Amino acid sequence: MLLPRRAVLAGDTFSSRSSIRLPSKCIWNTLQKRGITIESLDSQRNNRERVVVLGSGWAGYSLARDLDSKKYQAVVVSPRSYFVFTPLLASTSVGTLEFRTALEPVRSRRTKVEFFQGWADAVDFESKKLSIEEAVEDPWQGRSLTGDRHEDESQVERAHEKQTQAKKGQLFDMTYDKLIIAVGCYNQTFNTKGVKENAFFLKDVGDARKIRNRLLSCFEEAALPTTSDEMRKQLLNFAVVGGGPTGIEWSAELHDLITEDMKKLYPDLVKHVHITVYDVAPTVLSMFDEKLAKYAMNHFKREGISIKTSHHVEELRIGAPGQEQKKIRDDATGYTIKLKEEGEIGIGMCVWSTGLMMNPFVANALAGKVKRDEKSGGIMTNGRLQAKTENEGIVPDVYALGDCAMMEDTSYPATAQVASQKAGWLAKRLNKRDIEQNVFTYKDLGVMAYIGNSKGLFQSSGADISGRVAWFIWRGAYLAKSVSWRNRMLIPMYWFINWAFGRDISRF
Amino acid sequence: MLLPRRAVLAGDTFSSRSSIRLPSKCIWNTLQKRGITIESLDSQRNNRERVVVLGSGWAGYSLARDLDSKKYQAVVVSPRSYFVFTPLLASTSVGTLEFRTALEPVRSRRTKVEFFQGWADAVDFESKKLSIEEAVEDPWQGRSLTGDRHEDESQVERAHEKQTQAKKGQLFDMTYDKLIIAVGCYNQTFNTKGVKENAFFLKDVGDARKIRNRLLSCFEEAALPTTSDEMRKQLLNFAVVGGGPTGIEWSAELHDLITEDMKKLYPDLVKHVHITVYDVAPTVLSMFDEKLAKYAMNHFKREGISIKTSHHVEELRIGAPGQEQKKIRDDATGYTIKLKEEGEIGIGMCVWSTGLMMNPFVANALAGKVKRDEKSGGIMTNGRLQAKTENEGIVPDVYALGDCAMMEDTSYPATAQVASQKAGWLAKRLNKRDIEQNVFTYKDLGVMAYIGNSKGLFQSSGADISGRVAWFIWRGAYLAKSVSWRNRMLIPMYWFINWAFGRDISRF
Repeated sequence: MLLPRRAVLAGDTFSSRSSIRLPSKCIWNTLQKRGITIESLDSQRNNRERVVVLGSGWAGYSLARDLDSKKYQAVVVSPRSYFVFTPLLASTSVGTLEFRTALEPVRSRRTKVEFFQGWADAVDFESKKLSIEEAVEDPWQGRSLTGDRHEDESQVERAHEKQTQAKKGQLFDMTYDKLIIAVGCYNQTFNTKGVKENAFFLKDVGDARKIRNRLLSCFEEAALPTTSDEMRKQLLNFAVVGGGPTGIEWSAELHDLITEDMKKLYPDLVKHVHITVYDVAPTVLSMFDEKLAKYAMNHFKREGISIKTSHHVEELRIGAPGQEQKKIRDDATGYTIKLKEEGEIGIGMCVWSTGLMMNPFVANALAGKVKRDEKSGGIMTNGRLQAKTENEGIVPDVYALGDCAMMEDTSYPATAQVASQKAGWLAKRLNKRDIEQNVFTYKDLGVMAYIGNSKGLFQSSGADISGRVAWFIWRGAYLAKSVSWRNRMLIPMYWFINWAFGRDISRF
Repeated sequence: MLLPRRAVLAGDTFSSRSSIRLPSKCIWNTLQKRGITIESLDSQRNNRERVVVLGSGWAGYSLARDLDSKKYQAVVVSPRSYFVFTPLLASTSVGTLEFRTALEPVRSRRTKVEFFQGWADAVDFESKKLSIEEAVEDPWQGRSLTGDRHEDESQVERAHEKQTQAKKGQLFDMTYDKLIIAVGCYNQTFNTKGVKENAFFLKDVGDARKIRNRLLSCFEEAALPTTSDEMRKQLLNFAVVGGGPTGIEWSAELHDLITEDMKKLYPDLVKHVHITVYDVAPTVLSMFDEKLAKYAMNHFKREGISIKTSHHVEELRIGAPGQEQKKIRDDATGYTIKLKEEGEIGIGMCVWSTGLMMNPFVANALAGKVKRDEKSGGIMTNGRLQAKTENEGIVPDVYALGDCAMMEDTSYPATAQVASQKAGWLAKRLNKRDIEQNVFTYKDLGVMAYIGNSKGLFQSSGADISGRVAWFIWRGAYLAKSVSWRNRMLIPMYWFINWAFGRDISRF
C-alpha cells in the first residue's frame, strides 16, 4: 500500500475540517502560514443568502454581477480571475486587438462580487458544502484544457494529495445557500494522437497569446537566411481543424494579418503562405443557412484559403514529414499533421477547434448526484435551470447553466448567447424571488461570423446578410456587448490604430 | 577526450562555411531543412555598404533607422525582435500602461531595416565576418539576463555545440562592411546568493510582465480565506533593491497601483502592504542634486515607503523566514530576503535593480581584440565612436556605442540619453561620410524621475523642479520621445482610461 497511514487516519475531509482551528503557535501553522477558516467571508455576510457561483464565463460572470447585493452575498469561485469576451479572442490572437480588450476582471470596484481563485473539487448537496482547491499560481492559468488536471493520479493518490492540500490550506471548504454551477466545458480532441500536446487551442486568453507568439515566430524563422524554401513552405503552412465559427474566424483573422501586414513586413515570404481548414463533416459553418455557408466558402476560395471537408486528422506531431518523431521541438522543424485522406503534411502550426468536451467536474464530482444529458454529458436542468437528480427530482438550491448544462426538452446550442440569456434570467428571478412562477425561454437573436477582408455573415429570423454590412453588424454588436466602458473605448481605438498603422508584431 | 573526432576535423567554422552550399538533395538538408547561405541578403545589397548593427536598444535601434537606405544596407541582429522604450517599463509592470506601448518592432513598414533574430556569437575583424546564433524561439526572449547563456558549458563543449548548430543552420556567418556594436549590458547581481534565480528584474518587457503577474497574484493569494494574517503580511511586503531611478520609479508606480486601485479592490488587505527600498549606498537617486533627492525621500516617507540606505543584501531565497530552503515555490510561501543589518525578512517579491554587468559578448568574444575600459569593462572608443585596439589603434570600420561602450576621456553615464545621442550622431556622420572631421560631444538634457502620486523630479542645467510640474514634464517628454504615432496615441489613451476606470488586474 502506497499511502502512509497518517493520511488514511485523518478521516473524511468534509466532515469536520472547516470547524477546526489550529492554535496560532502550532508548528505547522508557523510553517505553512495558512489558516483554514473563511471567517472574514462569514462576517461580511449580514444575514444575506450566500450564492456561490462556480465559473467566470458567460454564465457565471454575468449572473454574479447581476445579483442584488442587498439580498445575496455573491461569491465567484473560478480558476481564472477574469471573464473572457470569447468572440474577440480570434482578433486578439493575431493582434487586431490587444489581449486585455477581451477581458474583464471578476474583481471590480463597481460590483460587490466576492472572488476566490480556485477549482471546485467536490460538493456535498446535503450539507451544502463545497471543497475548493486554490489556483492562484496555477500554471495552466489562461489556457484552455483538454482533460482532467488530476487524470494522471489514481483515486488513492488524489485522496492522499487532498489531505496534504487541506493541511496546507490549499483545499478549503465553503458553505452555500444557493449554488450556481457554470463551470463550462473543455476542448474536445477526440483523443487524436498528439493533439493535446501539440495543437493550439483558442478558448482562453493565454491560448490567444500562445498563438500570436507562434504565428509571428513562424515568419521570423522563415526569414532567417539559412532557412530553405522547402522549410519556409512548411513553417508558413497553417492548418485549422474544425470548420465552426472559431476555426473560420481565426482563418479569416490570420488571412487579414497576412494580406494587411505580413505582405509589407516580409514581402519575400508571402508567396509561401497557405491556410487550410479541415473538417470531418461535409460542410463548414453548419449553424448557418446553406446560402450563407456557401458565400463564406466561395469567399475563402477567392482569398486562397483551402477548405477541406470530409477530412480526418489521425495525428499531430512535432517535426517535419518523414522525419523521426521528436520529443521536443528543436530548430525550425514545425509540426506534421497526418490525414487519413492525404497522409503527412508539414505545417508551422495547427489551431484546433472541434467542439466541446464535458467538464470533468460534472463527469466526476457530480457523478451519481445529478441527472446528466446522454448526448453532451451535461447537467440536466428543468425549465427553471434547477439541477435534476437521477430520479427526476430537484437538487435543492442548485442551478446549472452555460455549456455544462442542458435544459430538459430543449436543444439550445452551447453558445455564449444561450449562457448569457440564462444568466440574466436566473439573476432576475433570484432577485425577485419569483422563480417558481417562471420558466426560461430562449430568444434567438441570430448568429454572426467574421470571414475576413472586412466581410461577415449575419443570420437571424428572416434576415440573411453577408458581406460588408454583416461585418459592420458584427463589429457593432460586439462593441455594444462589451461589458466595460474601458473596453468600449479601447476596442475602436485599436481597430483604428491597427488599420492606420498596422498590427504590432513584437513577440514576448 | 569528450569531443567526437568528426567535430574536431570539421575545421574552423569561420574559414569556409559560408561559401559551402550543399546539393538540395543531400540527406541532412532534407532532415534539417536549412540552407547555409545568406544569398537573398546579398542579392538585395545593390552595391550599398552593409552596416550590421548588433543590438536593438536605444543605440542600435535608433542608428539602424537613421541610416540612409540609399547608401547602406542596414541589418539589425538582435535576440529580441523589438526596441523597448525603457522609461515606461515600470508603468507597464503595474498596468498604468499596456506592455506594447513601450515596444517598437524592429521590422517596420516605414523603414528599410533588415532584421535577423539572433545573438552575435563571434566576430573576425580581419575578414569582416560575424558568426550569428539564431534566437527566434529563445526561451529567454523578453527577459533580462544576468549571465552568459553558455556559462554552464566548457569551451570544448561549446565548440562542439557550435559545430552542430552550424550544420543545422542555427549558426551562420554574415559579412559586414561596417559593424556597429551596441549589444548593451546585463543585470548586475554581484553574485548575491539566490538573486539570479529568485529576483524580478526590470530591463525588458518580459520582466515587466512577470512582475505584473506576480504582484497581482500576491494580492490574490493574500485574499484566499485560508491565508493567515502573518502570511498576508509576508505576501504584501515588497522589497526593492537598488535606489537608482528604476528602483525608485517602480516603488512609486507600485504605490500608485495600491493607493488608486488595490485599496478599492482588496479593501481588507491594504493595511498589510509595505514597500521597502534597500541600497548599499548612503543615499538614493545619486544622479540628482541633494535637494531633489531629499525631496524624493521625504515624499516617500510621507507615503509610507521605507528607504533603507547602507543596507546589504546577503541572500534571496524561496520560502518564509525560518523555513527550510525550498527548491520550488509551492503554496503561498513567498520569498525571504536576508540582510546583513536585519537578518531574514519575509517578502512577497523582490525587484532587483543594482546596475549593469558587462555583456559577455564583450567580455568573451571580443577579448584581446579591443581595448576595454578598466572600470566598466566596456569597449573603449575614440571620440568618433570607433572601437580601439589594445595597442591604441583603431579596429577598421567597427563602432561601439550604448551601455557596452565607453568613449575615451569622458565619463558619460550608461543612460538611454547618451546612447541615443551617440546613435543619432553616428548615423548622421555615416550618412554624410564626414566622420573624420567630427568628434562626438554629449549634451546633457537633464534627468527625470517619477516618484509617485503624480509627482516627479526634473533637473537640468540651471533648473531644479520637483512635484506636479516635474511630473507633467516627465509625461510630456516621454510622450514626445515615443517613436511611433501608434504609441503616441495609445499612451495618453491608457493614461486616461486607467485614471478614469482603474488599472486592469487580470492575470494571464
